[in-house]
Amino acid sequence: MSPAAAGVKAMVFDVFGTVVDWRGSIAREIRTLAQARGWRINAAKFADAWRAGYRPAMDRVASSELPWTKIDDLHRMILDDILVKFKITTLSEADKADLNRAWHRLKPWSDTVRGLKRLKKNFTIATLSNGNVALLNNMAKHAGLPWDLILSAEIFHHYKPDPEAYLGAAEILAIKPGELMMVAAHKDDLRHAARHGLKTALVLRPLEYGKGKHPDLSPDPAFDINARDFLDLAEQTGA
Amino acid sequence: MSPAAAGVKAMVFDVFGTVVDWRGSIAREIRTLAQARGWRINAAKFADAWRAGYRPAMDRVASSELPWTKIDDLHRMILDDILVKFKITTLSEADKADLNRAWHRLKPWSDTVRGLKRLKKNFTIATLSNGNVALLNNMAKHAGLPWDLILSAEIFHHYKPDPEAYLGAAEILAIKPGELMMVAAHKDDLRHAARHGLKTALVLRPLEYGKGKHPDLSPDPAFDINARDFLDLAEQTGA
Repeated sequence: MSPAAAGVKAMVFDVFGTVVDWRGSIAREIRTLAQARGWRINAAKFADAWRAGYRPAMDRVASSELPWTKIDDLHRMILDDILVKFKITTLSEADKADLNRAWHRLKPWSDTVRGLKRLKKNFTIATLSNGNVALLNNMAKHAGLPWDLILSAEIFHHYKPDPEAYLGAAEILAIKPGELMMVAAHKDDLRHAARHGLKTALVLRPLEYGKGKHPDLSPDPAFDINARDFLDLAEQTGA
Repeated sequence: MSPAAAGVKAMVFDVFGTVVDWRGSIAREIRTLAQARGWRINAAKFADAWRAGYRPAMDRVASSELPWTKIDDLHRMILDDILVKFKITTLSEADKADLNRAWHRLKPWSDTVRGLKRLKKNFTIATLSNGNVALLNNMAKHAGLPWDLILSAEIFHHYKPDPEAYLGAAEILAIKPGELMMVAAHKDDLRHAARHGLKTALVLRPLEYGKGKHPDLSPDPAFDINARDFLDLAEQTGA
């Protein structure tokens, strides 16, 4: 095992953006639906609008304005709003429920499954996502993600970046925070994890927000590992 | 899919006795330790004594005499008691901690892994055990159990047969109780599951309590499926 992963027993992964391409997947589903129904709609903008509602919705839970509400239900609240904004009025209840489950069908990045299979040989690999358990399980079955187990904000009733999510993952795995590595494409997620003693690996996902968008892709020596993708992460950890 | 499993989307499995041979595995570890240390001890009786403390310890949690306490810690409390009873005084703290983790290393029955791999193609397969998450994950890594996810009393803070364990599993999977099948070698576990609307499959494990012991092996038409082992369960559910 490489020094950067010394003492690491388990890796927990952010999912939306890190493991799967939420924007491309949602836009593709919207585009297919639009073609079938004859709508004229910017599918990528629809995906962006849906995702834009995500953090504010979780903040309403974190501030106790809403009681604990799982992501499937938050996604649905946001969807109902943006359908109005995009002037889509012809979806039945069953259509909306199915569209909401598009988040259960997100596609992995091309290196995801191969990388996870390698990492699984050396580490316990688990999700640590704000997505709810059923969503993450359906996604795993659909995309062939070989998780050892599924951990979710839903289990801790706290969304990242609440400390309970990071520390709850270490506690339920019965390991020390320093034996747990958080893997994410988002620096803020990793900075919160590090604050609670977790090890950190940044994985770059330059296309998360679409071509021509430029998320912050600079490596940061504050993280234990800076990796190009999951295969590079496996390489750097000796898996 | 067979009529008996019609509408079933996920199967949750009791683990100790149903998936793994706790008695043979614990006795084997004790025997090895006894040989190394020169003890004269009945290893099977030691295993039985350890297991006999299990239900009373969980009952102390269920009755709120103890706060929520995970199985690893209950196992350790019981171990400390029976070491005294068996007059074993030469174990260091590290020895005891390692022996307590024998429950993380239990061996599956010979049909377990092949059966689960078949069932996994048609169903979500998960543990629903009173064992804690880390124990179940370590066991799965050790024995190659291909769970989709690990569910545990620890997640619901209620031991089976509290309703919260059975209903919590259905809720976190976002399915109806009737879409969830409980698989167990123990009729009482299944009767509790059925009371809360879950489907049920009895799997016979005639050797759970050792050769010459005769647990109740009669099929019961009240269960949706009565199976000889996990391969028969796969067969009967069309997996």
